[in-house]
Amino acid sequence: MGYSVFLIKEISPFLHLIMSLLVTGTVAFDAIETPFGKTDKIIGGAATYVSLAASYFTKDVALVAVVGDDFPQEYIDLLNNKGINTKGLQVKAGEKSFFWSGRYFNDMNSRETLITELNVLADFDPIVPEGLESPDYLMLGNLAPIVQSTLISRLKNRPKLIVMDTMNFWMDIAMDDLMKTISMVDVLTINDEEARQLSGEYSLRKAARKILAMGPKYLIIKKGEHGALLFFEEEVYFAPAMLLEDVFDPTGAGDTFAGGFIGWIASTDDISFENMKRALIYGSALASFCVEKFGTENILDIDANKLRDRVSDFRRLSYVDFLTD
Amino acid sequence: MGYSVFLIKEISPFLHLIMSLLVTGTVAFDAIETPFGKTDKIIGGAATYVSLAASYFTKDVALVAVVGDDFPQEYIDLLNNKGINTKGLQVKAGEKSFFWSGRYFNDMNSRETLITELNVLADFDPIVPEGLESPDYLMLGNLAPIVQSTLISRLKNRPKLIVMDTMNFWMDIAMDDLMKTISMVDVLTINDEEARQLSGEYSLRKAARKILAMGPKYLIIKKGEHGALLFFEEEVYFAPAMLLEDVFDPTGAGDTFAGGFIGWIASTDDISFENMKRALIYGSALASFCVEKFGTENILDIDANKLRDRVSDFRRLSYVDFLTD
Repeated sequence: MGYSVFLIKEISPFLHLIMSLLVTGTVAFDAIETPFGKTDKIIGGAATYVSLAASYFTKDVALVAVVGDDFPQEYIDLLNNKGINTKGLQVKAGEKSFFWSGRYFNDMNSRETLITELNVLADFDPIVPEGLESPDYLMLGNLAPIVQSTLISRLKNRPKLIVMDTMNFWMDIAMDDLMKTISMVDVLTINDEEARQLSGEYSLRKAARKILAMGPKYLIIKKGEHGALLFFEEEVYFAPAMLLEDVFDPTGAGDTFAGGFIGWIASTDDISFENMKRALIYGSALASFCVEKFGTENILDIDANKLRDRVSDFRRLSYVDFLTD
Repeated sequence: MGYSVFLIKEISPFLHLIMSLLVTGTVAFDAIETPFGKTDKIIGGAATYVSLAASYFTKDVALVAVVGDDFPQEYIDLLNNKGINTKGLQVKAGEKSFFWSGRYFNDMNSRETLITELNVLADFDPIVPEGLESPDYLMLGNLAPIVQSTLISRLKNRPKLIVMDTMNFWMDIAMDDLMKTISMVDVLTINDEEARQLSGEYSLRKAARKILAMGPKYLIIKKGEHGALLFFEEEVYFAPAMLLEDVFDPTGAGDTFAGGFIGWIASTDDISFENMKRALIYGSALASFCVEKFGTENILDIDANKLRDRVSDFRRLSYVDFLTD
């Protein structure tokens, strides 16, 4: 064994199986300020990051989302050029796209929201176009839980796996809707503080047990620079985060992680716990690229060799040889 | 491969090689308050936890420390019964032992010190008894850095590996002494906030590079519930922390971790980076027992099978099978 374990026969992430992946969430403008600089309005939104990340693993990715007619065609082209089907991206005439602006503090672990303009998101009706109603896999990016559950109800068949991301905001204002949607999904992804809020337990092991009892078979707790945990029954798997020289901009890291995760699952068409662990590593690797530059900049065109090397780095990070054979 | 990797041929921690380990640090009274309860004065101190933990791996452990004549013989018997040589434990007539009292907050990650009485520690002269002056391995538990370097200077031969623990307190009041002592050791163990303070860098990767330039060949950054990092040149290894149901009392966890680490190294007589990674797992496993009860209670008599199972749990926690063979 030893380091030869890293000479992977086939880790090419470009497997291109024909499993279809449907993604919903926000497609939006972001304006970001970090200690390293600031951006004007750039392309952002959960569904943007999720679908870009997933596109590294599977080419059958489609979006259900909404923007205003202020959303530039070049951004839509950018998604199409990555093979993302935008037939389900509603463009509302005379309306404005969702806009979020935020500022990160020095430690990059906390941020303040400067502006939130819901605009078209305020009355988003998630219409699933014909031909996209039977996806093999479904990723519900962060959105109002009622919108997420509405989308599920409009599918012709239940997907093989439904992954849901959400945030503390919905716990504060829409707990009943949230609990209902959570009960409908297979995998829930939230961060550690959200897991504590949702469960009322400080211990993440206790929190996970309570949340799994709410419906999902799997729970992913994201701990940012401290990695991510995957819970399944009484099993737990820990994926470390990469130790980067600097985190330049954390925006979209969680969505990129989720996109890499569901993209890997869809491309391998394997929903076993063992394969989900691998998916966590691929998601983490993509997220580590995301935070190295502003916005989506660093995940638009990741070189296949660089991605493979990053995955190897992740595996080496927590690999220890116990002299077995 | 698969889970068979966990069927370890020989992980018995009771290897009992004849490498000698010298330990210094405090031997003291602690009074601890946590959300789960409080203790009277119980046995505590860095050297106590370090030597108890190390005693699970090697039986040639000796202490250099100081107490007052208020220190009960039963506590000294307790150390002797674990095979720890207390010839170097000075008992000062008419003086009182070091006493620390603290209270942990609900999250167990922060605490306040209620009482610190230096007593005998104020003028501790680390005298190394005859016969203990040439240890194979040396663990410098947290103490004034001038005392740590004095002890090194009194040894007849340089040990194969010197491991040093310290804390932010010495960075605040004795930086010059601290830098001198750090330059004399092979492995430095500190927590993440201390690494940031010592280096002036927020990024732990950058912090590690600066600290390794201060002299040590290896740096261990302890992140509590978030695990531990081992740095060596440009390599980094991440050992996760166990996800416990509850952390009952974190007192001594870092010292227990260090004791398990150096105990494993001494018992295997192998100072390679690969073996240090294993040592991190063993140290983490012992620390996970420590925090499950008050003070030293849970590390006085750990069953060999329970320790083996815990080590297996740790390895499974971050093990992922990438379908190689």
